[in-house]
Amino acid sequence: MTDYLPPIDDVRFILRHVIGLDGIAEIPAFADATPETIDAILDEAGKLAAGHLAPLNRTGDQQGSHLQSDGSVKTPDGWQDAYRHFQDGGWQGISASPNHGGMGLPLTIGAAVAEFWHSANMAFALCPMLTAGAIELLTTHGSPVQKDLYLTRLISGEWTGTMNLTEPQAGSDLAQVRSRAEPDGNGNWLVRGQKIFITYGDHDLTDNIVHLVLARTPDAPAGVKGISLFIVPKYLCNENGTLGQRNDVHVVSLEHKLGIHASPTAVLSFGDDKGAVGYMVGKEGNGLAAMFTMMNNARLAVGQQGIAIGERAYQQALDYARTRIQGRDTKTGAPAPILHHADIARMLLRMRASTEAARILALYAANQLDIAHHHGDAAIAANAQARADLLIPMVKAWSTDLGVENASLGIQVHGGMGFIEETGAAQHLRDARIAPIYEGTNGIQALDLIGRKLLRDQGAAAFALMDTITTDIADNAFEPSLGTAISQLKTCTKQILDTCTDDHNLAQTVASPYLRLFATICGGWLMARSQVALDTARGDYSSAFITRKQASITFYVTQILPECEMLHSQIHHCLQPAISGQPGNIIMEIETAFATD
Amino acid sequence: MTDYLPPIDDVRFILRHVIGLDGIAEIPAFADATPETIDAILDEAGKLAAGHLAPLNRTGDQQGSHLQSDGSVKTPDGWQDAYRHFQDGGWQGISASPNHGGMGLPLTIGAAVAEFWHSANMAFALCPMLTAGAIELLTTHGSPVQKDLYLTRLISGEWTGTMNLTEPQAGSDLAQVRSRAEPDGNGNWLVRGQKIFITYGDHDLTDNIVHLVLARTPDAPAGVKGISLFIVPKYLCNENGTLGQRNDVHVVSLEHKLGIHASPTAVLSFGDDKGAVGYMVGKEGNGLAAMFTMMNNARLAVGQQGIAIGERAYQQALDYARTRIQGRDTKTGAPAPILHHADIARMLLRMRASTEAARILALYAANQLDIAHHHGDAAIAANAQARADLLIPMVKAWSTDLGVENASLGIQVHGGMGFIEETGAAQHLRDARIAPIYEGTNGIQALDLIGRKLLRDQGAAAFALMDTITTDIADNAFEPSLGTAISQLKTCTKQILDTCTDDHNLAQTVASPYLRLFATICGGWLMARSQVALDTARGDYSSAFITRKQASITFYVTQILPECEMLHSQIHHCLQPAISGQPGNIIMEIETAFATD
Repeated sequence: MTDYLPPIDDVRFILRHVIGLDGIAEIPAFADATPETIDAILDEAGKLAAGHLAPLNRTGDQQGSHLQSDGSVKTPDGWQDAYRHFQDGGWQGISASPNHGGMGLPLTIGAAVAEFWHSANMAFALCPMLTAGAIELLTTHGSPVQKDLYLTRLISGEWTGTMNLTEPQAGSDLAQVRSRAEPDGNGNWLVRGQKIFITYGDHDLTDNIVHLVLARTPDAPAGVKGISLFIVPKYLCNENGTLGQRNDVHVVSLEHKLGIHASPTAVLSFGDDKGAVGYMVGKEGNGLAAMFTMMNNARLAVGQQGIAIGERAYQQALDYARTRIQGRDTKTGAPAPILHHADIARMLLRMRASTEAARILALYAANQLDIAHHHGDAAIAANAQARADLLIPMVKAWSTDLGVENASLGIQVHGGMGFIEETGAAQHLRDARIAPIYEGTNGIQALDLIGRKLLRDQGAAAFALMDTITTDIADNAFEPSLGTAISQLKTCTKQILDTCTDDHNLAQTVASPYLRLFATICGGWLMARSQVALDTARGDYSSAFITRKQASITFYVTQILPECEMLHSQIHHCLQPAISGQPGNIIMEIETAFATD
Repeated sequence: MTDYLPPIDDVRFILRHVIGLDGIAEIPAFADATPETIDAILDEAGKLAAGHLAPLNRTGDQQGSHLQSDGSVKTPDGWQDAYRHFQDGGWQGISASPNHGGMGLPLTIGAAVAEFWHSANMAFALCPMLTAGAIELLTTHGSPVQKDLYLTRLISGEWTGTMNLTEPQAGSDLAQVRSRAEPDGNGNWLVRGQKIFITYGDHDLTDNIVHLVLARTPDAPAGVKGISLFIVPKYLCNENGTLGQRNDVHVVSLEHKLGIHASPTAVLSFGDDKGAVGYMVGKEGNGLAAMFTMMNNARLAVGQQGIAIGERAYQQALDYARTRIQGRDTKTGAPAPILHHADIARMLLRMRASTEAARILALYAANQLDIAHHHGDAAIAANAQARADLLIPMVKAWSTDLGVENASLGIQVHGGMGFIEETGAAQHLRDARIAPIYEGTNGIQALDLIGRKLLRDQGAAAFALMDTITTDIADNAFEPSLGTAISQLKTCTKQILDTCTDDHNLAQTVASPYLRLFATICGGWLMARSQVALDTARGDYSSAFITRKQASITFYVTQILPECEMLHSQIHHCLQPAISGQPGNIIMEIETAFATD
C-alpha cells in the first residue's frame, strides 16, 4: 500500500492565496496565527498523520475494535500509541479556547489539519472528531464546574467525548427520543435508555469517557422541546478529577459495519441497574438546541472526511497508475504505465480536481465560521454566520458524495487489483460510504439548505453569495461557462422561492439537485479564484505544483462544471408544472409511482 | 432481509411489447419460443431464483468459499443443493444448441432469466455465467470429439467451465500472456503457467471442471497472434467420459475480495509437476480470436449483473422505505414511512427507472444477437450483428456503472442501517463493484465503442441506430428533449469522426462520456418506446404496473435524460481545440498534469 503524503502545498496555497487567511491574524483572538505559525502547524500535523496514523489504517481495518468478555472495548494494535502521540501534540485543543487549555487557533487551521487525520486514518480520527463536538458543546453551554472538570480534560485529550442522540426509533427524527432522566434527589439526574450508533462509545485509549446524552425529563412536553442534554461520564469523578465509581452505562454490542472497522460503533445502555448518573448541561428542554450549536462544526468535519478519503484514494490510485505497465503509449508505441492512457488520466483528474475544489469550499466555510465567531464588527460577523450556515450543508453533502464517487474511481483505476482487499483501495470506498449518512444524511442536508437556509430568509444569504460570485466573475474575466451557471442558479433560486414557499413537498423534490448545483458552482468559483491566485502567486510555488493546479482548474471548469447543466435541467423539469400553474409533482405521486399489485 | 421478487411482469412487457419478441418465433430455429413457453420459462426461473438462490445470498457472503488444506475449494452451505436444482432444471443449456442437449431457446430468453439468477445470488450465478462462455467457445470452435466429451457435459451442467486469460502482467493487455504449451508427443499438449482471477477456478459443485486456457506454443510469434486456446480438464477423461487421472493444475490461493465472497476467485498453477495435459481448441495461434467469439455474450451477461443488483437493491430499499417510520407527512402531519419524503422517493425512482431502461437495452441487444445468429436473411443478420456489436460495450459499461450507483443509493435510503452488514444493503454495493472491472474494464468498453465500433466503420452502425431512433421519434411524437439529445449525439459523433480518426489519444479522451451519452439516449429511446407500448397494451397489465411504469418513464425522461446535456458539454470541451485547429488535449498533458515536485 502506498504512503500518504499530506497535501501541505495545496492547503497552504488555499489558505494564503485563495481564501486569504493571512488576514485573519488581524482579528485579535487570532493574533498568534501568523503565516509562520500556520506553516509549522501544517508541517507537524503532516508528520503525525503520515508517520503515526497512516501506517495503522489497513491493520486497523483488518483487526477492527472488539467487545471483550468483560464488557470493555479493545482497539486495534498501535491505536493506544497513536493516541498518545495525538494527545501529546495537543492536537485535540488546536481550535479550543485558551481559557481551558486550547491553542485557540482559527477553526480554519483546525479543519485543515483534521483533513490530514481523516486521510491518514479515518477510523482513528473519528475519536477526536466526536470529542471536538463535546468540547464545543461544553464550551458554549457547560457550567463553570463542568468546564473545569470535563472540558479541560477533553481539550487536553486526557478523556474523550461521545454524542448520544440516536435511538432505534429516533434517527433523522430526534423528536422521537425516548431515553428518560429523573432527578436523583441530590441535584443530579438518573438517565435510562438505549442509544445506538455511538461512535467510540467505549474504547481503551483513555481512562474516562464523557458521554453527552439526549433524554427527556419527567413531564417534559412531547417533541423536541422536551429533550434535555446530560453529561454522563463512564466513571464518576471526584471534585479533583480523580476517578470514582463506574457509572451505570454499558456497551450492549458493537456493530458489524461495511467500513471504519476500527472505530467502535456501540449500542449503549444507560441505567440498567440504578440509573446512570447524569449532569444537566444548559437549561431543561434546551438539549436539542444545544446540540445544534455544534452542528456546523460537526458537519464541516464530516464533509472533510469525504475530501480526505478522496485525497487518499487519489494518491494511491496515481501511484498504481504510474507503476502498472499495460498496453502501449499511443504516441511512442512503447509499453506504457496506465497513467498514459486517457481514460485512466481522466479518472485521476476527476478525483483530484473535485477533491481540491471541495477542499477550498470546506476551508472557506471554516473561515466564515471564524469570522462569525470572532470578528469585532457585528454586521460582518452576522453576514459571515449566514454564509457559513448556507455553505455547511453543501460542504457536508457534496464533499461526502464526492468522497464515495472518488473512492469508487480509485478502485476502478486499479482494475482487478482494486477489488482485492489487500490492495487497500476497496477500504477507502467502504470507509467513505458512511459519510453521506451520519451527522444528518445528505438528504437531510439538502432539506436544511432549501428549508432553513433558503426559504426561511427568502434567499437573502443565497443571493448575497451569488452576488459575491458574480462580482468576482466580472472583476476577473473568469471562464464564461461559470457566468452561465451562476445565471441559471439565480433563475432557478428565484423559481424555487416563487413556487416552493407554500409547497414544501415541491421544495423537497428539488432539494438534492439544488444542493449539488449550488455546491458545484461554488467549487467552480473557488477554482476560478485559484486561477487568479496562481497567476499572481506563481513565484511562490514549484513549477510542478503550478502545472498540476492548472490542470485541475481546467479539468474542473471543462469536465465537472458541465454537471450544472444537468442539475439545472432536472430542477427545471420538477418546477415546470408549478411555474405554469399545472397540478402534479413528478416525484411525489407516491400512491401511483409505488403502487402495489 | 427482504425477499426477492423476480420482475416477471416487466420482463414480459419488454419482451412482448417493447422489443417484440413474439415475432422471433418466426425464425425457424426458435419455432418453439411461443409466448406461452416464454411465460412458463420466466415463471419457473423466477421460482428457482426466489426459492433456492436468493435465500443463500447473505449466508454465502458471510461464509465465503474456502481453500481447504487438501487443496480443494469448499463452497458455502447450501451451494451444492442449489446447484443440483439449477442443474436439474436444465438451465445451463437454456440457449445452447439442441444438437448437444441444449434447449435452443433465444439468447434473449436466456438473458432474461440470467438477470434473475444474478439478482437472487450473483456470487452463485457467476459459475453458470462462466460455464456459458465455455459452452459458446466449444460450440463454435470445438472438434466433434471435444463437443461429445466436454460440450455436452457443460450444457447438462454435469461439469462447469472456467476462463483462464489473466496473468499477473497480462490483464487488459492479453498480448503479455506468458503461459506456455508444448507438444507432449501424443498429439496433445503440456501447459505450464500461472493464471489469476479465475472465477470458480475450483469448487465442490461438480466432479470435473473444464478449464479453457490461453497459452503460447513454442516458436509462436510475440503478441496476440502467438496465443492458442486449450482445454485443460481438472480430471483427465476416458473416452466414455468417466474420470481418469487428476491433471496437473492446482489452486495456489483464493483472493480476499471486497464482494462476491462466495464465488471462489483462484490463482491457478498449471504444470507444477509434469505439465498439465491440454487439448488445443481450434487452430494454433487463433486462441484470442476464439475468445472474442464469446465476448459479446459474456459482456452482455456482466452488464446484466449491474441491472440485477440494481433491481435487488431497489426492492430491498423500497421495502425498508415502506416500513421505516421517521418524520411526518408534509400533507397530513401524521408519522410517515420515509417513502413519503420526496428525497427518498427520488432515490428510489432513480434506481428503478435506470434499472428498467438498462434492462430493455440489454434485452434489445440480446435480441439483435439472436437475429444476427439465426435470421435467414444475410443482410438483416449482418445489420443486427453490427448493431449488437455497437450496443454490447454500452450494455456492459453503462449497466454496471448504474449497478454501483444504484447499490450505493440503496444503502443511502436505509440511512444508518444501510452501513450495518446485517441489513444486507451493503453487500449489494460490495458485490456490484466488480462488474465495472471484469470482462474488460468499463474504460476498455469505451475504447472498444469508439475505436472498433465507431471509427472503424466510420460511424455506419452508429448512424444506422441513430436513424432508427430519429424515425421512431418522428413517428411517435416522443418527448422533445429526446429529439434534442439525439441531435446533439449526431453532431458530436460527426465531430469525433472528424477529429479523432487520426488522433487516437483524443478519441480515448472522450470515450467514456461518449459511451455514457449514447447509452443514456438509447435508454431514453427505449423508455419512450415503452410509453407507446403502454398506451397500446394497457389492457394486458394491472393498473399498478401501468402507473409504476408511467412514473419510471416520466422520471427517466425528466431526471435521467438531462445527464446528456452534461456529457455532451464534456465531450465538446475536449474536442473544441481540435475542431478549431488549436493544439492541446485537456486530459492528455500527462507530463504537466501529473508533474512531480
